[in-house]
Amino acid sequence: MIYLDEAATTPVKREVLEAMWPYLGPEFGNPSSHHEVGEAAREALERARADVASVLGARASEITFTSGGTESDNAAVKGIALASTGRHVIVSAVEHPAVLESAAWLGRIGYDITVLPVRPDGGVEPRTLAEALRDDTAVVSIQLANNEVGTIQPIAELSRITGKRGVPFHTDAVQAAGWLDLDVDRLGVQAMSISGHKLGAPKGIGILYVRRRVPCEPLLHGGGQEAGRRSGTENVAAAVGIAAALRLAGGLADDVVRRRDAFIARVLAEVPGAELTGHPVARLPGSASFVFPGRSGESILLDLERRGIVSSSGSACAAGSDEPSHVLTAMGCPAEIAQTAVRFTFGRGTTAEELDRVADELAALGA
Amino acid sequence: MIYLDEAATTPVKREVLEAMWPYLGPEFGNPSSHHEVGEAAREALERARADVASVLGARASEITFTSGGTESDNAAVKGIALASTGRHVIVSAVEHPAVLESAAWLGRIGYDITVLPVRPDGGVEPRTLAEALRDDTAVVSIQLANNEVGTIQPIAELSRITGKRGVPFHTDAVQAAGWLDLDVDRLGVQAMSISGHKLGAPKGIGILYVRRRVPCEPLLHGGGQEAGRRSGTENVAAAVGIAAALRLAGGLADDVVRRRDAFIARVLAEVPGAELTGHPVARLPGSASFVFPGRSGESILLDLERRGIVSSSGSACAAGSDEPSHVLTAMGCPAEIAQTAVRFTFGRGTTAEELDRVADELAALGA
Repeated sequence: MIYLDEAATTPVKREVLEAMWPYLGPEFGNPSSHHEVGEAAREALERARADVASVLGARASEITFTSGGTESDNAAVKGIALASTGRHVIVSAVEHPAVLESAAWLGRIGYDITVLPVRPDGGVEPRTLAEALRDDTAVVSIQLANNEVGTIQPIAELSRITGKRGVPFHTDAVQAAGWLDLDVDRLGVQAMSISGHKLGAPKGIGILYVRRRVPCEPLLHGGGQEAGRRSGTENVAAAVGIAAALRLAGGLADDVVRRRDAFIARVLAEVPGAELTGHPVARLPGSASFVFPGRSGESILLDLERRGIVSSSGSACAAGSDEPSHVLTAMGCPAEIAQTAVRFTFGRGTTAEELDRVADELAALGA
Repeated sequence: MIYLDEAATTPVKREVLEAMWPYLGPEFGNPSSHHEVGEAAREALERARADVASVLGARASEITFTSGGTESDNAAVKGIALASTGRHVIVSAVEHPAVLESAAWLGRIGYDITVLPVRPDGGVEPRTLAEALRDDTAVVSIQLANNEVGTIQPIAELSRITGKRGVPFHTDAVQAAGWLDLDVDRLGVQAMSISGHKLGAPKGIGILYVRRRVPCEPLLHGGGQEAGRRSGTENVAAAVGIAAALRLAGGLADDVVRRRDAFIARVLAEVPGAELTGHPVARLPGSASFVFPGRSGESILLDLERRGIVSSSGSACAAGSDEPSHVLTAMGCPAEIAQTAVRFTFGRGTTAEELDRVADELAALGA
């Protein structure tokens, strides 16, 4: 099987499982317990936190472990908005539902929500953000890279605009983690979300970065763990796992970009009518997404799966839904064309031969 | 080492890890993905849900997997209150902080909160609940059993009172799971929280039961997983794990009760001044809790730990805090006596010999 749906989820890396293993076994303590069993767990948790902070160029005290990307997005968008005196929230139209629906909930309890349009390549035009900012804007949330079309947003440029106005900027880096620079100072962001299972750690663990002095109402109240930022016994094993995965994931991806571009070029040349979606250059190394006007995306997926190639039409969250992708629609893609979308998302281990196989099959199908 | 802090956390059972293992390895799919990899994960998740539902006497569609007991408590108390037209919430004074702080947050956003007093044995007097109910009561949350003193609440009796008024009843069953009957119809509850790591499953997984037709605003918005009740990619491996742990945990605990009572009797007889906290009979099989007036709880814990016995002063969440236990204080225990508390919480595998060792050491310390 050739698995090209890494934007949905990734296998857990062997080194990650090995790092986690002691904390699923003998080192089972509750990090809040003040005895030797608890202290071993506490030390592992704090080492993991320091490792994550180091990758983000952040302080350890700014890192909270959550249950995943969705919780991190909810905690950041709702938490910063609820802690603010402002009652206006800005998100982009191509955000993950975890951000869009968090904003929609804020809208239902009385906040004003501005959804920024995007260009046909999926990018947010900095000018539209500048024009949308208000004196009462509580938080801006724009993703680092898109899950469906791979477009990378100019976060450093966008955050300079909000920075001048003193408005906190959250970025959903769930898809970007493992591929792009996550340094929070270079990005200029006040908050960031990361998910474990998109980068070789297990499901059920995420990271929320919130810069110190940025008020953020907790989503989970209770025992006051994570310095009060997120109550609930910490998932030590998975925290160790996501820290290991982040450490392993760094490094250049130029070779992946080359393989991706060769694959994109073949598909565009050999599959009649195929069009690339998203930005041609500012896109995730492991993302190649297309529409095939006149075809059915679903039937392409099924044909490929019969040939041992696993891909998807868009986000897993929306899989099976009859609704056209909100991302492609926001990019100006008509609904009937959006329904022909197929996304191939791959990892550093995906070979040129595998991608050639996929291009061969697509070309054969497209005949 | 003799580990007697199972109310803080438990080792993951071997059978639980073995059940989880495939889903940390080859079966890594996202249950929302509509391809073979996703479908294998989806099937495992739904089998786990059906297993949990069977233990609770519930429908599978009423079971939501969460990240733990704290999330379940937050989701139930806040979710039912936010979805209600009522603006009054009732909790008991001995609830876990996840319930108390969720109620406190609701108080900060405008709800009226009634905190029910308890008797000196930790039990809620049904009459006090009946008197506290109002026409605008949105939800009542009273735990099935207490984490610090083991007292079991008369939930079936309490829920009959709320049932007559049509008020939803949530019970935090985090400490009770694995020991007590969790049948939601016999308990008469509309919502229940369970945590994995208290019963031999890993940290980072919990269960939220909400009876159908009871409105509950989600805590996590996004991709609409768990039929919209809790967005975020499901933690398949841990869901399989908590289902396995619940299945394994059933059965009579009469032998544990006998060992516990023999241990309590020895401590009361042989340690000068020792007093049992909590209810003498209506208490968790694996819970023996004491105060030792005139002694320091912390120094007893340290002395025991030097002798290879791990126990705690109360909840792990509050460990290291100088505040006296809110549970003991609510039971009428003066602060200076509350600070002498030591809790021994054990599992089905704890032997009579181990408990005798602990009683011996306590008697020696108490001399």
